Amino acid sequence: MTDQAHPLIGNNTIDPEALWQDVMETARFGATGKGGICRLALSAEDHQVREWFRSSCSSLGATLTTDTMGNQFARIEGEEAGLAPIAIGSHLDTQPTGGKFDGIIGVLAGISVLRLLKETGTRLRHPVEVVNWTNEEGTRFAPAMLSSGVFAGIFTPDYALSRTDNNGVRFETALAAIDAAGTQPCGVHPLAAYLELHIEQGPVLEAENCTIGVVTGVQGMRWYEVTVTGRESHAGTTPMSMRSDALQAAARLMASIQEIALNRPPHAVGTVGMVSVRPNSRNTVPGEVSFSVDLRDPSDDVVIAMENSFRERAGVLSREYGVSIGIREIWDSPAVHFDQRLIDAVSFAARSLHLPSREITSGAGHDAAYLARIVPATMIFVPCADGISHNESESATREDIAAGANVLLQTLLIADRQLDALPASGG
Amino acid sequence: MTDQAHPLIGNNTIDPEALWQDVMETARFGATGKGGICRLALSAEDHQVREWFRSSCSSLGATLTTDTMGNQFARIEGEEAGLAPIAIGSHLDTQPTGGKFDGIIGVLAGISVLRLLKETGTRLRHPVEVVNWTNEEGTRFAPAMLSSGVFAGIFTPDYALSRTDNNGVRFETALAAIDAAGTQPCGVHPLAAYLELHIEQGPVLEAENCTIGVVTGVQGMRWYEVTVTGRESHAGTTPMSMRSDALQAAARLMASIQEIALNRPPHAVGTVGMVSVRPNSRNTVPGEVSFSVDLRDPSDDVVIAMENSFRERAGVLSREYGVSIGIREIWDSPAVHFDQRLIDAVSFAARSLHLPSREITSGAGHDAAYLARIVPATMIFVPCADGISHNESESATREDIAAGANVLLQTLLIADRQLDALPASGG
Repeated sequence: MTDQAHPLIGNNTIDPEALWQDVMETARFGATGKGGICRLALSAEDHQVREWFRSSCSSLGATLTTDTMGNQFARIEGEEAGLAPIAIGSHLDTQPTGGKFDGIIGVLAGISVLRLLKETGTRLRHPVEVVNWTNEEGTRFAPAMLSSGVFAGIFTPDYALSRTDNNGVRFETALAAIDAAGTQPCGVHPLAAYLELHIEQGPVLEAENCTIGVVTGVQGMRWYEVTVTGRESHAGTTPMSMRSDALQAAARLMASIQEIALNRPPHAVGTVGMVSVRPNSRNTVPGEVSFSVDLRDPSDDVVIAMENSFRERAGVLSREYGVSIGIREIWDSPAVHFDQRLIDAVSFAARSLHLPSREITSGAGHDAAYLARIVPATMIFVPCADGISHNESESATREDIAAGANVLLQTLLIADRQLDALPASGG
Repeated sequence: MTDQAHPLIGNNTIDPEALWQDVMETARFGATGKGGICRLALSAEDHQVREWFRSSCSSLGATLTTDTMGNQFARIEGEEAGLAPIAIGSHLDTQPTGGKFDGIIGVLAGISVLRLLKETGTRLRHPVEVVNWTNEEGTRFAPAMLSSGVFAGIFTPDYALSRTDNNGVRFETALAAIDAAGTQPCGVHPLAAYLELHIEQGPVLEAENCTIGVVTGVQGMRWYEVTVTGRESHAGTTPMSMRSDALQAAARLMASIQEIALNRPPHAVGTVGMVSVRPNSRNTVPGEVSFSVDLRDPSDDVVIAMENSFRERAGVLSREYGVSIGIREIWDSPAVHFDQRLIDAVSFAARSLHLPSREITSGAGHDAAYLARIVPATMIFVPCADGISHNESESATREDIAAGANVLLQTLLIADRQLDALPASGG
């Protein structure tokens, strides 16, 4: 794709102050004492921000549609009849101790685009829609990205509506409680393309002084639950030679995860995040240790190779320690590759705005990962301080967010001129 | 010491059937569905077994004394005036899911000795006392061996009486509730020697087909709380090179415990029994990992050397992983060496009874460990199935228990003839 200044927008850019003010205004809904946000999906606070979204978009001339999963679409019509909308979106729900930026800037940047279109009196060829996907975080209703998942056909509506929170409240009930369900069946909503601006949630862009992450896809990821079973015995009376110590075998197996990931540079990562020991007593040789394993790489082949190495190591340790080792895969999320034309457009937009950029793979899941299954999609990352996210201290600068929104705008303009040949999704 | 058949006891031995019957009878007080016992110190069940002890000993002609910690002493007078008693004892309280043998056989073997003395009309030179120490297990009132500890001057009576259980009930109140406190001040009770028969609570005797463990002392033991602090980060978005993974450093440090113990054969043992991970989330690189370390060896010097190796390894890993590692010693129990004359007597008794025996160090704490601070003391171990203890499936055979009781009897006879030159304790 190539680009020139848009005939109507010209050199206008999104208003960084208005965008920042929107960030600060939405941060009031569920604000925590430590500067973060607690705005669980379909909570009273989520209701507040959803109403804010509705009224802000309406006042910019957008038409609101809500689907049966509560996904909100704010639409500005385009000039050419028959084109599906290009959507810009993300989510407004947060973790229980979340920050002001994760997901939120993706929606607010979309609103900034609507504002610019209104202020410059611009109509694009395609309709433009800003989307707020319901329950992306998955904290209140697991799994994450539930409603974009239904939209993309990953989950059935019945499955999604019957999810329950920790208090046993069904997703469907929570939707009704804040009157958040619309009438449009989820997924029956054509889209020409999907763009999502997000904070990186990692340390790479900041460390390399890059303002823009050109996101090429989402890592493949597998989760495992590993259980090492030895023989519980007295820590004082059992000689070393007569032990079947589940923890000693598990410690070596957990340590192998680091080696296995380091052996497959540059992208592979491996993490042991949860550990549980039984009976967890100071003076008892552990009889059972369970731990989680998280393996990721942009290539599914590398993830599989890591798993194979891990299983091999487990076999060796099982024999060496006289323990049994069970490895159960509990989640498999294949790698996602974003649309190459949109990736190129983001890269071009960053260059044309003289913003330092680099290609990057998303290590976390995003609504865009599901959207990419059904429609040309891509993402734009901006840095966050120290790579910290899902935390009340999550932080991103006004300048970087504005830069990301401008790259989003330029990408939209390129897509608007060149993506119309693509088939629309949904419907 | 040397030995000959006792002029009065001759070749008589304790009655194995009566001893086994006592084991089965006491097992009724607090019996669990799985064949174990739940008889927490000073509970209603403990009260039952204490009354049983009192009445059984009384019917054998013994005089009961109870001290202010509830320790029960059942005394048969000796022939020579002015000699302090030789005590045989252990405890009748159990773990919440305890077995029928731990502690119990030590007291019941004492009762078997009283029975034999009565049946054969034998009086020894010294008085003989059977002792039931209160709250050995430490499950209801921590710490363990509370009342033998007061007896030996390890704990003050005020400290002990003010211990509380999980419901906030004071030890003193629990004593009064079952009328278990006597008037004799704890510790003001002369003893010439102390002998304790116990199941091994480990797998060594069974594995080596030894009936008798000649216990030479109790291992020195130190407990540590280790905290590894790294930096919490996202498991998907943080490259391996930018992590400060507390779990990866901790896994290697936990694994080092095994090497450190194996480097100091034949007795050293090292155990990581408890692990705690923060935030303990599948997709978060752990920011903090805490774990317990238990190091033991019959020589305090070896325990110290192991600690030094561990600290050295922690220093290396701290630098390598960019984590901070705190090591806090939370308990130091120096090694106990039993009285060599009594150890020799046990060894001789086993040989003279043609019972296979080996020297062994106790890996667990026992009342005898505290008694040894103030009076010549030793222990005799008998095997337990698979080394399992503190468990409802704890098991020992009638034959092994009887063999242990006979070694106890012979040791008593040797001590009776040869220990009178020793100063009596207490008083």
